[in-house]
Amino acid sequence: MHLHHHPFCPHSRFIRLVLAEYGIEPDLVEQRVWERRPDFLALNPAGETPVIVEQQAPSVPGAAIIAEYLDETRGLALGDRRLLPNGPAERVEVRRLMAWFNDKMFLEVTDHLVRERIYKRYMKADQGGGPPDATVLRAARTNIRYHLKYIGWLAKARNWLAGERMSHADLAAAAHLSVADYLGDVPWDEDEDAKAWYARLKSRPTFRGLLNDSIPGMPASKTYADLDF
Amino acid sequence: MHLHHHPFCPHSRFIRLVLAEYGIEPDLVEQRVWERRPDFLALNPAGETPVIVEQQAPSVPGAAIIAEYLDETRGLALGDRRLLPNGPAERVEVRRLMAWFNDKMFLEVTDHLVRERIYKRYMKADQGGGPPDATVLRAARTNIRYHLKYIGWLAKARNWLAGERMSHADLAAAAHLSVADYLGDVPWDEDEDAKAWYARLKSRPTFRGLLNDSIPGMPASKTYADLDF
Repeated sequence: MHLHHHPFCPHSRFIRLVLAEYGIEPDLVEQRVWERRPDFLALNPAGETPVIVEQQAPSVPGAAIIAEYLDETRGLALGDRRLLPNGPAERVEVRRLMAWFNDKMFLEVTDHLVRERIYKRYMKADQGGGPPDATVLRAARTNIRYHLKYIGWLAKARNWLAGERMSHADLAAAAHLSVADYLGDVPWDEDEDAKAWYARLKSRPTFRGLLNDSIPGMPASKTYADLDF
Repeated sequence: MHLHHHPFCPHSRFIRLVLAEYGIEPDLVEQRVWERRPDFLALNPAGETPVIVEQQAPSVPGAAIIAEYLDETRGLALGDRRLLPNGPAERVEVRRLMAWFNDKMFLEVTDHLVRERIYKRYMKADQGGGPPDATVLRAARTNIRYHLKYIGWLAKARNWLAGERMSHADLAAAAHLSVADYLGDVPWDEDEDAKAWYARLKSRPTFRGLLNDSIPGMPASKTYADLDF
């Protein structure tokens, strides 16, 4: 399996975490989506990461669609560790929270942080490159506080974010927090419950791949790879 | 079943079309999401329409999540008319296109049209109300041409947008086009294939509910309810 991704695209990170839970180690192909390369647009006309490609199968584009596809083709094999529960009502809650983080938190927080602080370093001026926009960053740093609080509230009320078992909801939330954490933009002191929940996830062997990522000339925050942050 | 919706929210219209294909007539509850009413936020913390509520079941929020839930609980009963195909690869294509229209076309076209031309009429100034923003409308009217062309290209290459059978992809595309059509913002003359495909959908009895909708003081375009537009 090939995973077309960017190391700091939060949706790509979500799929890396999901694949790791399945024990799948994909070949990683880095994409810079702002270059709009024709061979990548052929895999995903929407021009967005992540996309998975398996031999003799059509490409599967988009975080939510990949998560459903993996569950449909391999979910039962995970047994008790299945990432999408069996009951329709429980699946609703997992999907609601997965969309909350992949769609809402992305639009309000991580899209801004990653674009302004990372992608723009690599974009040419006509692709939207340049210095980060301070107003946009300020909004993202305000918005993350409310998402962190919601995560803490869920983690305190339940064992995992969507219920008794770890699910796509936890991995989506952790993927988004992980890019903000690399950049030092998570106010961990503001929510002990969210912090304890994230520490549990971060200690999983499946998280190691993300913790090894780095950006040349932009080292990770002190908390990023520290399991006792 | 209750459907919390707005008559001109394209995601709500998508679910009305889906429910009609199942033969379900929900009780409609109109929501003005910009009012952020606490009883509605309790049903969907994201504060967005649509949401379905069945007796003795948790609420199901969001167009994509409702579509999956209905397929999981009632899809098999549709037999050959099932709106999400049985094979994983075919499901990927239906979900990709459903997301294309519900997410991408929404952000680029219908969110702008509906917000600027309809919702703002009902919003107070502190809720974002006021006259439509001409620049935003111009962008939406440019963007719709490319979505219409994509629909035409798919409709010509296949029987329905995602393959041999009608699916969530067709109903999502039709729902978004229908609000633009009410407003007279679909350049039908630019794509005969898209027009012929839409005429097929519009003639279905399941479409009638939408064609009866109207906004006081803002009549529908001439093409809207005309089956031979």
